[in-house]
Amino acid sequence: MSLLIVGTVAFDGLETPFGVREKILGGSALYGSLSAALYTDDVQLVSVVGGDFLASDIQLMADKGINVDGLEVIADQKTFFWKGKYHTDMNSRDTIETQLNVLENFVPKVPESAKSCDIVLLCNLVPAIQMMALKAMNKPSLVVLDTMNLWIDNTLEDLLAILREVDVLTINDEEARLLSGEHNLVKAAEGIKAMGPSVLIIKKGEHGALLFGPEGRIFFAPALPLADVVDPTGAGDCFAGGFVGHLAQTNDFSFDNMKRALMEAATMGSIAVEAFGPERIFEVTHEEVRARRALFTDLAQVN
Amino acid sequence: MSLLIVGTVAFDGLETPFGVREKILGGSALYGSLSAALYTDDVQLVSVVGGDFLASDIQLMADKGINVDGLEVIADQKTFFWKGKYHTDMNSRDTIETQLNVLENFVPKVPESAKSCDIVLLCNLVPAIQMMALKAMNKPSLVVLDTMNLWIDNTLEDLLAILREVDVLTINDEEARLLSGEHNLVKAAEGIKAMGPSVLIIKKGEHGALLFGPEGRIFFAPALPLADVVDPTGAGDCFAGGFVGHLAQTNDFSFDNMKRALMEAATMGSIAVEAFGPERIFEVTHEEVRARRALFTDLAQVN
Repeated sequence: MSLLIVGTVAFDGLETPFGVREKILGGSALYGSLSAALYTDDVQLVSVVGGDFLASDIQLMADKGINVDGLEVIADQKTFFWKGKYHTDMNSRDTIETQLNVLENFVPKVPESAKSCDIVLLCNLVPAIQMMALKAMNKPSLVVLDTMNLWIDNTLEDLLAILREVDVLTINDEEARLLSGEHNLVKAAEGIKAMGPSVLIIKKGEHGALLFGPEGRIFFAPALPLADVVDPTGAGDCFAGGFVGHLAQTNDFSFDNMKRALMEAATMGSIAVEAFGPERIFEVTHEEVRARRALFTDLAQVN
Repeated sequence: MSLLIVGTVAFDGLETPFGVREKILGGSALYGSLSAALYTDDVQLVSVVGGDFLASDIQLMADKGINVDGLEVIADQKTFFWKGKYHTDMNSRDTIETQLNVLENFVPKVPESAKSCDIVLLCNLVPAIQMMALKAMNKPSLVVLDTMNLWIDNTLEDLLAILREVDVLTINDEEARLLSGEHNLVKAAEGIKAMGPSVLIIKKGEHGALLFGPEGRIFFAPALPLADVVDPTGAGDCFAGGFVGHLAQTNDFSFDNMKRALMEAATMGSIAVEAFGPERIFEVTHEEVRARRALFTDLAQVN
């Protein structure tokens, strides 16, 4: 199946207890598409960068099998920049700087070739822009959306509007509580599913991820206990990319297959955090992904 | 296999957002043995109560298949009393009152019939008393120990002494960090295993439990997402009881079987929290335990 990924391509400044990167490739769509491209060779990207973005970096993405026809370059503006600093336990971070730049007036341009994609992953982005991208498409079979607390706090009406169009929502535990007004995650999931999504993924970081499906079905994918988490940036996007990548590869939207997709998502999330920014995702091989996935089988399966 | 459970039998006062119980049966060995008795019919108990304890309550335990020969009654003293209050999110609690009473000078008396038990579960208790109980036995094949932050803070030397005799330690995540001085749980587990136990279970409450075995093997049992947690008191003891109960029932200490035991432990923990104190554990049937265990299969297994 064909897969479209809409989101940001960015420069990030990162600081974690393991070190500092002043300027490194980033953005939700970059992470998401790199991750998904490890599962399927029909991945298109819709995003925007500025004149400061290197053609060689676009080529790097194309070399990974990502169709970059939908990556708009606005020559007289700068690429979106985000700078963040992680605390010692890696579970929380501060935003040090945000320069929206090209994102300020971003209107996603979905190429003709991408309009009929079967699956769309709308990565974390202003909900109104996510809606524009979705409306430019020919009713994809599966709409997967990621969001964050910023949009729950500031553009709730727009978020609720797109949630009505969404099949699968991915959100973290604190955001699920914020969006639903329920502390208990089972009740939060019920509340959020009433807003539109038939399937909900609640990400709990180092505590794994819950998949809430139809008829009260629940599945849980653990996080791999890691001795060293170098940089969590992009882990959620790689997680989402692994999820949709597996679905595109297998052409099966059943709950049982979404369980498998969640294990692939957890696999990609665990790989993403092992190096700074997208460094690990750029270099990881299919064999390494399969070996990591096997660790999850050991971790979670009982004979 | 025969199983001995050493720990407290108590009266508890409990307050949770769901209600209040002024005085209800409790204690680590009561919970642990009730849970284990759902798996095996060869469970002995070593503990102590005061003259205020009802013979009918002892009979209740015996009716559940627990051999209570090792339950000492000190007629002129009072039973151990603990009163606690849980916060809204149920993840933290305050101790309101502790009356040690019979525990103050407790010397565990292990009956002859219990000295040769194959497995001993040393429930949460002063480490020096746990050691006395262990020394009174004829070298059991498997020693499982539970402990808490109080003993790490106050009687560390005694705790380290008994850890050298232990095969399996169960401990929660914050206590694992406190004992090891490592925030990362993989590193904490390595540090604690160097203190003696060859297998370590780190309990993460609503986030499940990790089993660290030989040669770096790791297994994870999820917690069942529950809409209502009525009272977490005793959940850790029921968890430990399910773990040793399964091992006693199956007579197999391999890591693969400990994985299964951890799923049974998680099953019993999820049942324990559904009512106040031991109310649910007293009434739950084998059929309900099997049905709950099946929910864990749905939750964690991928086809």
